[in-house]
Amino acid sequence: MDGEVILLDAYASMFGMRLRIALAEKGVKYEYREENLPKKSPFLFQMNPIHKKVPVLIHNGKPICESLIALQYIDEVWHDKNPLLPSDPYKRAQARLWADFVDQKVHTLGRKTWSAKGEEQEAAKKEFIEALKVLEGELGEKPYFGGEEFGYVDVALIPFYSWFHAYETCGNFKIGTECPKFVAWAKRSMQRESVSKSLADPEKVYDFVLILKKHFGVE
Amino acid sequence: MDGEVILLDAYASMFGMRLRIALAEKGVKYEYREENLPKKSPFLFQMNPIHKKVPVLIHNGKPICESLIALQYIDEVWHDKNPLLPSDPYKRAQARLWADFVDQKVHTLGRKTWSAKGEEQEAAKKEFIEALKVLEGELGEKPYFGGEEFGYVDVALIPFYSWFHAYETCGNFKIGTECPKFVAWAKRSMQRESVSKSLADPEKVYDFVLILKKHFGVE
Repeated sequence: MDGEVILLDAYASMFGMRLRIALAEKGVKYEYREENLPKKSPFLFQMNPIHKKVPVLIHNGKPICESLIALQYIDEVWHDKNPLLPSDPYKRAQARLWADFVDQKVHTLGRKTWSAKGEEQEAAKKEFIEALKVLEGELGEKPYFGGEEFGYVDVALIPFYSWFHAYETCGNFKIGTECPKFVAWAKRSMQRESVSKSLADPEKVYDFVLILKKHFGVE
Repeated sequence: MDGEVILLDAYASMFGMRLRIALAEKGVKYEYREENLPKKSPFLFQMNPIHKKVPVLIHNGKPICESLIALQYIDEVWHDKNPLLPSDPYKRAQARLWADFVDQKVHTLGRKTWSAKGEEQEAAKKEFIEALKVLEGELGEKPYFGGEEFGYVDVALIPFYSWFHAYETCGNFKIGTECPKFVAWAKRSMQRESVSKSLADPEKVYDFVLILKKHFGVE
């Protein structure tokens, strides 16, 4: 019924983790293929000639690129089990807005906590905390971003939690003490098997970041 | 039936044009409110506190921000007339991928044709043409990006055509001669009243870019 599903991914990729979580939520069986990022496979370039990035979801031979687009694809194809996006158009727009905020802010600023230096790094750490506080405001007293059920924004955001240890260690700052409600949400989400089995080990993410720092010449 | 629809917009905004086209395609009546970009209204900040940008679509008092998200909202709420996204999940994913490509490449590189200088500007001009050629390849022999019908990618992309005159004049290069298939698609799209009535006058866009250049200190 599912057809042939392949995931081209990399262990520490937060974008890949999103798809692992979504496929687990939907109960879709798939073949996981780890890409060697310094030397990506010819098959990856063939499947994602535009962006040349992981993750790529391949369903019955057809590639779906860009993680938020692939999340929506997964939700549309396997719509009967654990819907990720709500059905109301306004709530869908809000969910898309916050997932986009995660990409624009959490990802971009999180990256700068280890890749930038000096003033730029200090600014990024401050803005990163501010972005999480905006998300805490949006979460409010709800258990998940969409309300009572784990959904689209939660899937888009939770993988970054596995990067916090690397952000904190490289940036020499503490996130959890500043954003307790965020951490409570993250721990709640981690109780789901779909999440706990899909997220990378924070220590391994940190090791990966050290390799990235060396690769990009960040001391 | 439509409810109260307000569009906070700015005449030369390619993102605003997207929503004007989509609302025209759907036959939705709305109140257009021009924002003064150097001095945006308190109402805009209230409706879009996160990004503080136009356009904002306001439907029955609720704001929908970010143009591609608002396009999808319009398509979902007024789904019976002129559907923009196809119904097949894979085709939907492809349409979203190309609209995202427009934002990532066409918008970013187009902006650099007038805002960057020297080598960076030369590189942007070259990459801008390359991005349009990628789009020409995707278009192939089809009349529109989605096939026979004017759709989501067309709506996302066509507003940039009204900026070509400014890109060409500021960047001192010719786009049309390099990308004839793109121009043929643009002219085809311009034959639709929804498009021709929604796009800004290229001369006025150019005047606006001159103001932007002065504002950002680009000589």
